[in-house]
Amino acid sequence: MKFTKMAIVALAVMLTFAVTAQAAEKKVRWKLAMTWGPTAVPFSDAVENMAKMVEEMSGGNFVIRIDASNKHKSPFGVLDMVKLGQYDMGHSASYYWKGKDINLLPFTTMPFGMTAPEQYAWFYHGGGMELMQKAYAKHNVMSFPGGNTGNQMGGWFRKEINSLDDLKGLKMRIPGFAGEVLAKLGLTVTNIPSGELYTSLERGTIDALEWVGPGMDIRMGFHKIAPYYYTGWHEPATELQFLVNTKKFNKLSPANQAILKNAMKLASYGMYTQNYHMSAEAWAKIATDYPNIKIKTFPKSVMDAMKAANAELLKEKAIGNPLLAETLKSQADYQKKAREWTKMSDYLYLEDNL
Amino acid sequence: MKFTKMAIVALAVMLTFAVTAQAAEKKVRWKLAMTWGPTAVPFSDAVENMAKMVEEMSGGNFVIRIDASNKHKSPFGVLDMVKLGQYDMGHSASYYWKGKDINLLPFTTMPFGMTAPEQYAWFYHGGGMELMQKAYAKHNVMSFPGGNTGNQMGGWFRKEINSLDDLKGLKMRIPGFAGEVLAKLGLTVTNIPSGELYTSLERGTIDALEWVGPGMDIRMGFHKIAPYYYTGWHEPATELQFLVNTKKFNKLSPANQAILKNAMKLASYGMYTQNYHMSAEAWAKIATDYPNIKIKTFPKSVMDAMKAANAELLKEKAIGNPLLAETLKSQADYQKKAREWTKMSDYLYLEDNL
Repeated sequence: MKFTKMAIVALAVMLTFAVTAQAAEKKVRWKLAMTWGPTAVPFSDAVENMAKMVEEMSGGNFVIRIDASNKHKSPFGVLDMVKLGQYDMGHSASYYWKGKDINLLPFTTMPFGMTAPEQYAWFYHGGGMELMQKAYAKHNVMSFPGGNTGNQMGGWFRKEINSLDDLKGLKMRIPGFAGEVLAKLGLTVTNIPSGELYTSLERGTIDALEWVGPGMDIRMGFHKIAPYYYTGWHEPATELQFLVNTKKFNKLSPANQAILKNAMKLASYGMYTQNYHMSAEAWAKIATDYPNIKIKTFPKSVMDAMKAANAELLKEKAIGNPLLAETLKSQADYQKKAREWTKMSDYLYLEDNL
Repeated sequence: MKFTKMAIVALAVMLTFAVTAQAAEKKVRWKLAMTWGPTAVPFSDAVENMAKMVEEMSGGNFVIRIDASNKHKSPFGVLDMVKLGQYDMGHSASYYWKGKDINLLPFTTMPFGMTAPEQYAWFYHGGGMELMQKAYAKHNVMSFPGGNTGNQMGGWFRKEINSLDDLKGLKMRIPGFAGEVLAKLGLTVTNIPSGELYTSLERGTIDALEWVGPGMDIRMGFHKIAPYYYTGWHEPATELQFLVNTKKFNKLSPANQAILKNAMKLASYGMYTQNYHMSAEAWAKIATDYPNIKIKTFPKSVMDAMKAANAELLKEKAIGNPLLAETLKSQADYQKKAREWTKMSDYLYLEDNL
């Protein structure tokens, strides 16, 4: 009888441990580093929404702590920190890594490239995801769409641009690849910390600047000091990226892998919708409060010069980079096909309904 | 000692039951009825993707069986079956219920209404979801976006339409509210089972028909017998709906509620992207194989008459239906604001990049 009793005690203890162990094993705690500050709405919202969905869908068993740039102090170190496993995942934009690895440039947006619906179709049905994983594989990182801004505006200008000559010598804050394109057209391209942008524009240190679109620009106040708001050409569908350390991802349970992947995907689409709303609201407010602001499109001569400079730069960069060349060709081919559909659907519809 | 032993046995048994019960309680089996057949891609894909996501994210503990219309034999009984709890959820389109409850009409799409990004912004940030729940509450059903087709084409015509007179007496298959609008313009509007459409058009039983867009039209073969493909006006962003029995939803665990809601939301966006891709691919194929097909836009006189008939019909329907009136006003106000942003972003961008 003593043996039986012992066995029962042992069974009870084992069962108790099993239940506890199962719960403990399930609880996953991850850390995410984002390039942005904690209130960079809607970028930060995309990350918070993703983490909230993961926590809710896992019944609280998968929790992601978000560190903004003011915490980790390394906004442009996100790729490296995820690669090295200092963070399990990150949130940033692929085109920031063009200096580190030019193959990562095309996964955010390209000048004169695809619109958001076209680009989502390319990512999920046109080979984009496969090319993105191929490009990130050597960094031991997986990459996923992380939120689209929609079409970005070409920027705030203090003077009207009527010709290529009006652009020459103009001092403009415009970062990244678009800045390289404009430099070819004779602009003096500078980067200035965001906190100093308003004053720089007001004092004439710069003549123009590019930010995002009305939804994010309105808080910066540029509409108070620059009357020309040019339409976009350089970032038709800026897609941010979630970066995930491959080894860490592979250690997740299948359910948590599915939860994380779907939460990232939904956060991406959700930010596109959110920024569409924010832009519509913000532009309505700006147009009401500052009725003198003019929406302008660059003249054809300027557009043509930008297109030529863009094509030339891409050709140079693709030399010796077969993966970049493959990605650019995939994008161009897909865009050509998808644009025909965009034209006969939304474009021709809008033409009669503006 | 006897008492202690008994207590330990009881504890062991209770723990064993607790573990088993927890697993059993977790397993949720639902049934979904969809209006479509089992291979109505991409509609059926949206449902299958949703169910797959739910199963994977729940670790196999929440399983949804899908019954297509060939199984339940009641494509337009989906709302009632979900309402009565015969099915836990359904997949259909809200505008099918306009005869049953006119308040449910506007949640799919409206003639001359919002494009897909505008409509998603309205649903999730402009009050659309709240209005939709309000309209469905009296049916004890919750409603969620369930997949967007994007802009639908105006239809296949055997003859070119150059004036309002060309439309008068024309026999056209176009169902729903758009059919009511065209009937006001003097068309003879009919509905014909999908299996008989090709033959009806070929034999001249009808002169024109509306289906969806190239992605779904290509399998029907209409491009072989009707050379004019008119652009859309009547369904600029057709959003299907998931319907969920409210009592059944409330019985789900918080984690399963989150899993279901996010899976439905993602399936909706995913179908929009999938159909964008399918349309681009299908149109490229049609244009290559049938180079004589002409993309046409209805002349301004016809568009203006359609707009007037649409406005008149909506005005009539809103009389005595305050919730319909509220929803239509919410949509019109939101569209006006969002369209300004659409114009200065994607539209003006596309104008220079077609």
